[in-house]
Amino acid sequence: MRKGLCVYPGSFDPVTVGHADLIGRASKLFDSVIVVVLHNPSKRGCFTVEERVNMLMEVCSRWPNVKTDRYDGLLVEYVKKQDAGVVLRGLRAMTDISGEYQMAQVNRHMAPETETLFLMAAVQYAHISSSIVREVGGFGGDISAFVPAAIAQQVYERLRPRGRL
Amino acid sequence: MRKGLCVYPGSFDPVTVGHADLIGRASKLFDSVIVVVLHNPSKRGCFTVEERVNMLMEVCSRWPNVKTDRYDGLLVEYVKKQDAGVVLRGLRAMTDISGEYQMAQVNRHMAPETETLFLMAAVQYAHISSSIVREVGGFGGDISAFVPAAIAQQVYERLRPRGRL
Amino acid sequence: MRKGLCVYPGSFDPVTVGHADLIGRASKLFDSVIVVVLHNPSKRGCFTVEERVNMLMEVCSRWPNVKTDRYDGLLVEYVKKQDAGVVLRGLRAMTDISGEYQMAQVNRHMAPETETLFLMAAVQYAHISSSIVREVGGFGGDISAFVPAAIAQQVYERLRPRGRL
Amino acid sequence: MRKGLCVYPGSFDPVTVGHADLIGRASKLFDSVIVVVLHNPSKRGCFTVEERVNMLMEVCSRWPNVKTDRYDGLLVEYVKKQDAGVVLRGLRAMTDISGEYQMAQVNRHMAPETETLFLMAAVQYAHISSSIVREVGGFGGDISAFVPAAIAQQVYERLRPRGRL
Amino acid sequence: MRKGLCVYPGSFDPVTVGHADLIGRASKLFDSVIVVVLHNPSKRGCFTVEERVNMLMEVCSRWPNVKTDRYDGLLVEYVKKQDAGVVLRGLRAMTDISGEYQMAQVNRHMAPETETLFLMAAVQYAHISSSIVREVGGFGGDISAFVPAAIAQQVYERLRPRGRL
Amino acid sequence: MRKGLCVYPGSFDPVTVGHADLIGRASKLFDSVIVVVLHNPSKRGCFTVEERVNMLMEVCSRWPNVKTDRYDGLLVEYVKKQDAGVVLRGLRAMTDISGEYQMAQVNRHMAPETETLFLMAAVQYAHISSSIVREVGGFGGDISAFVPAAIAQQVYERLRPRGRL
Repeated sequence: MRKGLCVYPGSFDPVTVGHADLIGRASKLFDSVIVVVLHNPSKRGCFTVEERVNMLMEVCSRWPNVKTDRYDGLLVEYVKKQDAGVVLRGLRAMTDISGEYQMAQVNRHMAPETETLFLMAAVQYAHISSSIVREVGGFGGDISAFVPAAIAQQVYERLRPRGRL
Repeated sequence: MRKGLCVYPGSFDPVTVGHADLIGRASKLFDSVIVVVLHNPSKRGCFTVEERVNMLMEVCSRWPNVKTDRYDGLLVEYVKKQDAGVVLRGLRAMTDISGEYQMAQVNRHMAPETETLFLMAAVQYAHISSSIVREVGGFGGDISAFVPAAIAQQVYERLRPRGRL
Repeated sequence: MRKGLCVYPGSFDPVTVGHADLIGRASKLFDSVIVVVLHNPSKRGCFTVEERVNMLMEVCSRWPNVKTDRYDGLLVEYVKKQDAGVVLRGLRAMTDISGEYQMAQVNRHMAPETETLFLMAAVQYAHISSSIVREVGGFGGDISAFVPAAIAQQVYERLRPRGRL
Repeated sequence: MRKGLCVYPGSFDPVTVGHADLIGRASKLFDSVIVVVLHNPSKRGCFTVEERVNMLMEVCSRWPNVKTDRYDGLLVEYVKKQDAGVVLRGLRAMTDISGEYQMAQVNRHMAPETETLFLMAAVQYAHISSSIVREVGGFGGDISAFVPAAIAQQVYERLRPRGRL
Repeated sequence: MRKGLCVYPGSFDPVTVGHADLIGRASKLFDSVIVVVLHNPSKRGCFTVEERVNMLMEVCSRWPNVKTDRYDGLLVEYVKKQDAGVVLRGLRAMTDISGEYQMAQVNRHMAPETETLFLMAAVQYAHISSSIVREVGGFGGDISAFVPAAIAQQVYERLRPRGRL
Repeated sequence: MRKGLCVYPGSFDPVTVGHADLIGRASKLFDSVIVVVLHNPSKRGCFTVEERVNMLMEVCSRWPNVKTDRYDGLLVEYVKKQDAGVVLRGLRAMTDISGEYQMAQVNRHMAPETETLFLMAAVQYAHISSSIVREVGGFGGDISAFVPAAIAQQVYERLRPRGRL
């Protein structure tokens, strides 16, 4: 098991300033971090998996020990393939901890070597989520405070037409 | 900013006795209240927006300082257009307060002049919601205790056929 | 009212080891138990109602006082038809108790003679749910610890192709 | 194990209308019910254990299958002594379910034969608790809607002087 | 009933930047605001009621429509005496909403004319509370970001010796 | 900052099998772990700080990279003194996450270099806490499944007389 390797999974649809803050903090805590977009074929996202990975790569380019990846299967399989010791999850102010607890226990059952660690979102980002970005942006609202500057224009253009439907 | 103006947003699909109780209480607390049906084009409701507004108008006709409206966009835009000082939200016995907290913070960020105030549902209505009305009514159950008397027949007829599918 | 009769409703899509544990415990507490698959026509399940009932029958065959049934309507109607004194619900470690509370209150309003009783899931099953089974199984993961042995193969075969979509 | 015997434990300091409602409902669900005041020597109550038992006896006299008792030890010991099959606990609208879950699991570990069942408080009593009675009564407020009529005067007189301190 | 009058009760032991933020926001929403220190004789605070009121007066002097008061009894009695239409309560990120719900319902029962309204704490103050101030200050930690500047020195000096015990 | 150093703080009054499980898991995730008993002079514990540290030392002796310590002050001061990069906290099934969130944010404010990471308790220990040990043991109940075998006798003897009071 690669002790200093941390996998940070999510749908990142799209990546927010809250995600970016967590990735930056994780990059200081672990030797290397892989941010992985988990692709659930039965759930249609707003952005394609390719778009999400590309935005993450742009956002993560500032941290040399952070890599971006995608996976079309169970998190535990990916973690085993990478031989990672840690899965990282963010808790926002009032995250539904029960879902996180359930997922952590199931993953522990299936990959007992890997631990799930949780990091609290910073207070200033605690109310920001991908779905807020999609909703506000979809109606043409200002999302510049919710997504990293590097991808704001891209997200805005992509979401804008949805509000026009 | 119009200090005594309160906007009470929701989907009201359909309006319940719990909503009506809150509107009546709000009409005593504020100079004027606008009950606004927010229309999210990506979410298909059970009743059309027109039906919801009409039912609300029927229910609210007893309070002279309450008006009904609809809006196809972000709440904050509507609030700015109306120049309202207060957004009102109801908390039911065990509402998921985290969603409310997130929405309130996002709205504060986007419209710092407007405050979101929360009012607790009355105990006798704490278990009633629009989705309960739709589910019970959809199977032909008795909904007369869940919706205002003025619209009960209308809701019943509209929901009834769904149970027959 | 049949005092010793307990109805245990759910979607059982599919039945898990957690459900089975609860059924076994209920069979000791009540004279007879009916496990009923509630069929909501507007919600497409993963398994058909027939499949769910068949799996339940296989799992429940070891308890002579447990019967399996299905119903395409409101729980309260079924409970009245059976004249049952008790509805049983399981609470998992961090179940959303607000939904349960709401349902119990609505049912009490509509069938005041019947009480809803809650039983806590055993710690070792607290993180297991039908949706976990569907997700892990859908990606071809090992679900043998999550569903009763008698139906594991059947569930596995049925879920497997979904991961291939 | 006496299957139809239910033990309803608590501190009942003092018994409220919410407790009384639960006891009455339990008396219909089980063959016999024992309401037991658990005495924790390290926690000083407002009423003495004797006073609490006496008030409970007065309130429970209307249900022939309900008895009142006290115990100065662990609930599980009492349950074993009585050979009871069921421990009953009430859940109020927003009870801290985690404490209940923990207690139920510990009791299951120590007395595997006995199950803890939960019953939801009626909506109209969901906000009433012994501590509310003590606080309101302690300041001389009107508690007649919070405690059973039979003991209201007694509770009022006992609490009143505290507000004068 | 004085419609534009809002009572903001609390123990303010001591007042924090979070409280001050809420008071400032309330001063814009209502014609006049009374911040009242409720004194519970059975609960010994860290600061005396006089100290708390004095600190509040210093903090609130910038808002002409805010007054400070103290009361040694039930909130509902005070509210009736003032004939106030609104009681204001703050919700922090993860406040135990059940306690607030219970209090609001009891108050509504006892003073049906008065409504309790809730305002969410600003994100940057969501983690600050009087008990945090007491704990950090009691060990000599830096509390300058937690209490209003006008009273920081006073609070620091008062708490400091406690850490020396 | 010592990146691989993790501080695990608590009151450990006394250490439970749940704590021990977490310490063992932490010892695999970090280069070294310090388990520190935080001593709050205003809160009288059941065991003395010396007893708690001694029991922890006995329990932790099997992990060479785990040390035990005590501190009579704020956690952040201790963390700064040790120059630790990580504070570890356990989340039990239904921990009050709001208290943890608040503490993590306050600590981040005061020691921005240090991150708080959370690890979920194993399902089989999720219902065990020091207070359960004290309560069950205080009444002479069997605590052998709740505390590490090495200290069970010691805890039992120490708690036993309390039940006799």
